[in-house]
Amino acid sequence: MEKRRGIITLTTDFGLEDAYVGAMKGVILAQFPDVKLVDLSHHIPPQQILRGAMVVEQAYRYFPVGTVHLFVVDPGVGSRRAAVAASADGHFFVGPDNGWIPFVLQGRQPDEVVYLDQPSFWRTPTPSSTFHGRDVFAPVAAHVAAGRSLEEVGSPCPALIPLPVPQPVWSHHALRGEILYADHFGNAITNLHRSLVQAWPDDEAWEVAFGDQADIPVRRTYADAHPGDCLALWGSSDYLEISIRNGNACLALGLRVGSPVTLRPASPR
Amino acid sequence: MEKRRGIITLTTDFGLEDAYVGAMKGVILAQFPDVKLVDLSHHIPPQQILRGAMVVEQAYRYFPVGTVHLFVVDPGVGSRRAAVAASADGHFFVGPDNGWIPFVLQGRQPDEVVYLDQPSFWRTPTPSSTFHGRDVFAPVAAHVAAGRSLEEVGSPCPALIPLPVPQPVWSHHALRGEILYADHFGNAITNLHRSLVQAWPDDEAWEVAFGDQADIPVRRTYADAHPGDCLALWGSSDYLEISIRNGNACLALGLRVGSPVTLRPASPR
Amino acid sequence: MEKRRGIITLTTDFGLEDAYVGAMKGVILAQFPDVKLVDLSHHIPPQQILRGAMVVEQAYRYFPVGTVHLFVVDPGVGSRRAAVAASADGHFFVGPDNGWIPFVLQGRQPDEVVYLDQPSFWRTPTPSSTFHGRDVFAPVAAHVAAGRSLEEVGSPCPALIPLPVPQPVWSHHALRGEILYADHFGNAITNLHRSLVQAWPDDEAWEVAFGDQADIPVRRTYADAHPGDCLALWGSSDYLEISIRNGNACLALGLRVGSPVTLRPASPR
Repeated sequence: MEKRRGIITLTTDFGLEDAYVGAMKGVILAQFPDVKLVDLSHHIPPQQILRGAMVVEQAYRYFPVGTVHLFVVDPGVGSRRAAVAASADGHFFVGPDNGWIPFVLQGRQPDEVVYLDQPSFWRTPTPSSTFHGRDVFAPVAAHVAAGRSLEEVGSPCPALIPLPVPQPVWSHHALRGEILYADHFGNAITNLHRSLVQAWPDDEAWEVAFGDQADIPVRRTYADAHPGDCLALWGSSDYLEISIRNGNACLALGLRVGSPVTLRPASPR
Repeated sequence: MEKRRGIITLTTDFGLEDAYVGAMKGVILAQFPDVKLVDLSHHIPPQQILRGAMVVEQAYRYFPVGTVHLFVVDPGVGSRRAAVAASADGHFFVGPDNGWIPFVLQGRQPDEVVYLDQPSFWRTPTPSSTFHGRDVFAPVAAHVAAGRSLEEVGSPCPALIPLPVPQPVWSHHALRGEILYADHFGNAITNLHRSLVQAWPDDEAWEVAFGDQADIPVRRTYADAHPGDCLALWGSSDYLEISIRNGNACLALGLRVGSPVTLRPASPR
Repeated sequence: MEKRRGIITLTTDFGLEDAYVGAMKGVILAQFPDVKLVDLSHHIPPQQILRGAMVVEQAYRYFPVGTVHLFVVDPGVGSRRAAVAASADGHFFVGPDNGWIPFVLQGRQPDEVVYLDQPSFWRTPTPSSTFHGRDVFAPVAAHVAAGRSLEEVGSPCPALIPLPVPQPVWSHHALRGEILYADHFGNAITNLHRSLVQAWPDDEAWEVAFGDQADIPVRRTYADAHPGDCLALWGSSDYLEISIRNGNACLALGLRVGSPVTLRPASPR
């Protein structure tokens, strides 16, 4: 049996004004009193599966093997979308079958995937049609965190539904991508991952262009720019970010989700 | 003695920018290091007792019996409003005597109620006149979660102050209520509880009217409407909600707290 | 060896939308599974070291001795600013050397201070140049919370960098200070601490002036004013606050960070 740690992380679009997150935590604690609950984020913009999946992708690997990651960004609740659980890299993932798990695994295959079709592991055999987080996903996550195997809580699922994600493309020795989101600091996070260009020369030899900005240098860290200056850098998850040192790049530069960004070798100076 | 679980939930209007919530948690941990702290919400709008009471009412029953629910929405702090603790349904409730406990219990009588008049269970016999959460409620909640009986931490309280709540009324075979609040998704939650109409026919036979909208159908779940369509449904706590599938009903329809809503049998078609 | 409690508090300017806080918590749990994590605030305005330091200063003393306070408001990340840990009052403090610890200690000397220059206690010997919270501060905090001594995790640091803070001044029998921040309720918190005037007569004998307002009375608690009335009072951390009972003083009165405030003996009436 895989190792368990009794840790459950939670990622939802529920916000923190309402009783939804508390109700889920109550259900988990009632099922498994020794659980350790860790919020990743409850501020995923409503129904934005990709944004939620990115948070899990950027955080899950830092947790101990055996952690259960519970995800409830679930615009299809009440429809026929499936409820699933998967294991991969020693971690467990519980939530709707809406693409978040394949995104989190970035193309790697999970070790095991099941449909959550065993009502005996739910809070009630007649779950609310609008809140499977409380009635299906939370109790199943509690059972898995407490040591149940995936084959106990569900039946084999042959394949997860993938999530459509904008992919970068090569064009004329440049890599074209786009802004995926703005983080809390106003850094614009792109879909350009460092692994795409790792065979290229060192950071200083790059530049970025977007909108009417060109020749933005790629630097190692914020401190390599003057306060107020624009720079690009490989963020802590190795995605290219556009930043203003001690400022809000998205506000100042008018960057939006979907804005195109080009990364290319720096022009000789 | 009643069972205890060492769990304390917290509901406040303190927000999360300041040191207030942290100070309360420090006081609790200093008193009872094995406690499990669970935030319900710290985003109750300032001084809105009813909104806070609704969060507790919708979440508390999912926690294990023996949980202590700490509530600090307290516009009367420093005045003569009493500090109280109560037990009911196997749960414990600690906070100001401002109506939240009777609302949470929805008309059921608590098993025991006490005034918190024993300074030996406070953090200090001279509490801050603006922060009883830290100096009175948090330490008493810690003592109760650790196993103290209510009769140890206080003296009998004959009756709790009730909370004025808008009540639905029947009129011409229709039930008239109002919007109590907007949740994080912009769903407009009404004061119309499913139990008021449970003897009526099934969901599909109902419709809702508000403002200049009429004939809004009552559906089972969001997925029963097209994206962007307006519907009404019985929410996960069995209150009638007005929603737009994958949209924000309150913004789109101009619904506000207090807006009237009517529920009636659907017209024949 | 000093006592440890296995408690780590977290204070950052990361917000809760992104994966940053979750990644730090994962690193801590992977290192020290029995840790108790308590958020003080992740809503410190970006790069505002003083605001973050005030939150820690107002909350840390309520935690048990042996608690580790982790602080990541770090505009200098990636530059040569040092990473440090300190002990004082039985508490431990881990974060960047940017002034927050001297502010928290309010002039008292720490018992021990070290530079975090031992990569074997980091998550990786090659930390991200933008996220020392995850790669340096979080793992060191975990080691300290688990019982490591400061001299194990670092080398002696002779002196911490101080934080520039606006200081009140006496002028013509009045104390002139300024607004440091607005709390969640819109109370305007000043830099005037009660200890500066404790030899003076009782609260009722004071008044406050700011902007075009004069003769604002100093009261004991909100309930000493009528709803909507302006008052000043000594807050729960003993700083003078300007408030409107059941209202938002900063919005209503146009108070901003840096606005001057004068405290003086009340005029005879």
